[in-house]
Amino acid sequence: MKQPDYTLYMVTDMPSVYKKGFLESIEAAVAGGVSIVQYRTDGGTKRELYENGMAVRDLLKRLGVPLIINDHVDLALALDADGVHIGQGDLPAPVVRRLIGKDKLLGLSTSNREQVLAVDKTVVDYIGIGPVFPTQSKRNAPPAIGAADLAALVALAPVPNVAIGGITVETAPAIYATGVTGIAIVSALSYANDIQAAAKALREGGIKK
Amino acid sequence: MKQPDYTLYMVTDMPSVYKKGFLESIEAAVAGGVSIVQYRTDGGTKRELYENGMAVRDLLKRLGVPLIINDHVDLALALDADGVHIGQGDLPAPVVRRLIGKDKLLGLSTSNREQVLAVDKTVVDYIGIGPVFPTQSKRNAPPAIGAADLAALVALAPVPNVAIGGITVETAPAIYATGVTGIAIVSALSYANDIQAAAKALREGGIKK
Repeated sequence: MKQPDYTLYMVTDMPSVYKKGFLESIEAAVAGGVSIVQYRTDGGTKRELYENGMAVRDLLKRLGVPLIINDHVDLALALDADGVHIGQGDLPAPVVRRLIGKDKLLGLSTSNREQVLAVDKTVVDYIGIGPVFPTQSKRNAPPAIGAADLAALVALAPVPNVAIGGITVETAPAIYATGVTGIAIVSALSYANDIQAAAKALREGGIKK
Repeated sequence: MKQPDYTLYMVTDMPSVYKKGFLESIEAAVAGGVSIVQYRTDGGTKRELYENGMAVRDLLKRLGVPLIINDHVDLALALDADGVHIGQGDLPAPVVRRLIGKDKLLGLSTSNREQVLAVDKTVVDYIGIGPVFPTQSKRNAPPAIGAADLAALVALAPVPNVAIGGITVETAPAIYATGVTGIAIVSALSYANDIQAAAKALREGGIKK
């Protein structure tokens, strides 16, 4: 797959978090400027993830926005998603690449210099770098990096990269200013009263940079 | 894949449970008569499961015993295991069949008449039926079936079937007597002082039937 637009990368929270409905919230986020969506699949049985995931896939296909599946390579294959995002504790990236074939996107979470330098750009399409700030949405996350060290990691990254972890409308401009390809957002979208407006405000932090 | 010998089906416990080593215990179980092994993958990162799984796969390949992976279709594909075993809450069986291709074994857990009757023998190679007795090794297990109701389910099963759940050396003969294809064992092997002797005693319950 050709590289997508990573500018504003939505990572979904538990569906129950979205007060105005899960699919409705994703659609509002896309209307506000989200350019790619990761269906993060913490909690629930795999059957539930699959059934919800089919609905997310069909929605995003209609909207023309790529769908990335978190962690579960089998779920990504079952849904024929556009890609999969793995962490350092998941199957090795070359193994995942073999399973998904050459046309799907492969993202990898990184949180320090060693992990960024170890990225093989012939295998991995993009990396997440984070957490930038302390985050509540992911348990057992590594220590926060901060905006200054983020810029150093971005400069080393051999592939497109998205910063993740506690980024808000207020901090988005400083994060975009580090040179990241995009910002990945969980809570600042999922807990927003107006998700479309939040997405627009987050993205404007990039446009204004 | 042609149907394997399901007579004595070992389901592995957490590697740390095996006092004499994980691989050593599997090898002893096979020496005692285990005919197929499911690498049950509760706990640990997927990377750890993959790394331990490669060692189990290589051991079983050398011993000529099939390896089944629990739940994780991606791990089964990554390890090129002989099959995968899924539960009712996992990806639908036809989806898993599509992902694994026609040559790998597909097992499905069932625990009642409706689930047994719903099995599509063109998709599923074998079923687990259980828990026969109350079990400590699986959280959130359905209520125990008992040996009498097990026999009724076995009679309905359209594919080879293994009984699972709390089966011991003492109860194995009665379970084999229900007509099951095999018995699946977790604790009566993993907590045995002499795993090879326990496997032999379990299997003799089948030979004597």
